Amino acid sequence: MSGFTNTRTVRIEWGDCDPAGIIFYPTYFKIFDNATAALFEAALGMTKFEYLKAYGFAGFPLVDTHAKFMKPTRFGDDVTVESTITFGTSSFTVQHRISLKGELCVDATEKRVWVVREGGRIKSQPIPAAVLAKFN
Amino acid sequence: MSGFTNTRTVRIEWGDCDPAGIIFYPTYFKIFDNATAALFEAALGMTKFEYLKAYGFAGFPLVDTHAKFMKPTRFGDDVTVESTITFGTSSFTVQHRISLKGELCVDATEKRVWVVREGGRIKSQPIPAAVLAKFN
Amino acid sequence: MSGFTNTRTVRIEWGDCDPAGIIFYPTYFKIFDNATAALFEAALGMTKFEYLKAYGFAGFPLVDTHAKFMKPTRFGDDVTVESTITFGTSSFTVQHRISLKGELCVDATEKRVWVVREGGRIKSQPIPAAVLAKFN
Amino acid sequence: MSGFTNTRTVRIEWGDCDPAGIIFYPTYFKIFDNATAALFEAALGMTKFEYLKAYGFAGFPLVDTHAKFMKPTRFGDDVTVESTITFGTSSFTVQHRISLKGELCVDATEKRVWVVREGGRIKSQPIPAAVLAKFN
Repeated sequence: MSGFTNTRTVRIEWGDCDPAGIIFYPTYFKIFDNATAALFEAALGMTKFEYLKAYGFAGFPLVDTHAKFMKPTRFGDDVTVESTITFGTSSFTVQHRISLKGELCVDATEKRVWVVREGGRIKSQPIPAAVLAKFN
Repeated sequence: MSGFTNTRTVRIEWGDCDPAGIIFYPTYFKIFDNATAALFEAALGMTKFEYLKAYGFAGFPLVDTHAKFMKPTRFGDDVTVESTITFGTSSFTVQHRISLKGELCVDATEKRVWVVREGGRIKSQPIPAAVLAKFN
Repeated sequence: MSGFTNTRTVRIEWGDCDPAGIIFYPTYFKIFDNATAALFEAALGMTKFEYLKAYGFAGFPLVDTHAKFMKPTRFGDDVTVESTITFGTSSFTVQHRISLKGELCVDATEKRVWVVREGGRIKSQPIPAAVLAKFN
Repeated sequence: MSGFTNTRTVRIEWGDCDPAGIIFYPTYFKIFDNATAALFEAALGMTKFEYLKAYGFAGFPLVDTHAKFMKPTRFGDDVTVESTITFGTSSFTVQHRISLKGELCVDATEKRVWVVREGGRIKSQPIPAAVLAKFN
């Protein structure tokens, strides 16, 4: 199962940037986290608050990420974030491509696991078939 | 000169919230900072990057802020941010009201000064008439 | 009951600052939140993770804050944060004074309420006597 | 030239964590950025504000990062951040290992370039010999 894509526009804000006048790079990872939440929202038709409840899970924490930064962005830029998901059994990978006026600025992949809470701890679990079905 | 208002919708994100599951309150001040930038963008017809250049100033740092928090918000909420500006000579005040489904959640005011850079330091300066004219 | 004070040194980091080269002011509210947690840690002899459990509460969200910014700080500055608490029945006020090399940069007060979780919602509750005793 | 290491302890704060009660992962990248600044501070004997001036450069933006997350951390944790630098000509790589009570939680590498400002844009440039000498 693979290839579901969600695209959104994000404004880079003054407070997202550092004294060099360009984006402070940890901001990109917030943008990716928001984009992954939005991708699930697009497929499931619910906000993250709602789908955590509806599917009884605790989130999808990161286990691995790799990002390449090709071109800086700065406040006032409206960047395009294109996110594509590929599912494993209890994990999934999202590729996020951030571009500005057609030029690729950041290319990142993140691997996340589906987790449930069990006695105060979190543990991974297979992604429900009902969730996977929504991405087809 | 007073009363120019800009209204926008802002999504509260997962990463904006803390372990209590509600918004981590410093996030509100980022929302206010973005809202003030957006208010100027609406009046001046340019992004902050562009208007800092066009009007030759270094920003509008805060000198005072007061906020009341009436009702928590959480991830998945789409809040309405209504920002109203009142001008002084070299300073201005913005009132930001954040509401959710018609209920007021936060009521805040901020006083900011118009500054220019002079030899590595910033100093306040009267707001240009050309800027004020755009708000009328 | 009043007057318990905790003082700490905080480094302003590159990523805490904005394109004007000075601190992005919402960062101050993170510093205040950390300082309030540290003040309780100093009095109770436990981390926030531990004292939330030990005293069975959900946190102390803000209901009101007022801050005056007198002098900007920037990355590389080691500021002094002096926090003084005054208790009410189910709320408390903390005054935070941030200074650099003896000069006051920010003077802020915050009012917070002691809350417990009840059926998915949070509600205020009197601060336990056992907690108050630790501040004397 | 390789192998200069700097180690520091960082407290994970309440506001660094998300509704799952564990660290919001973009926070790690702030911790890495601070750790890289601290590593240069340790070698050069100056804060980042001072060494940007002393060596006339605009910073060291990221071009690539890869991080593996093995074990979550949460508020109240005092993690150890061990950062080791390896220099290229106009770039360098830093490996950051975050551990808690001896257990490795995050293993990350970042590649950064040394940049100068030229007419409003930033461009890479060889790292000065005077800087490299300080790391030996």
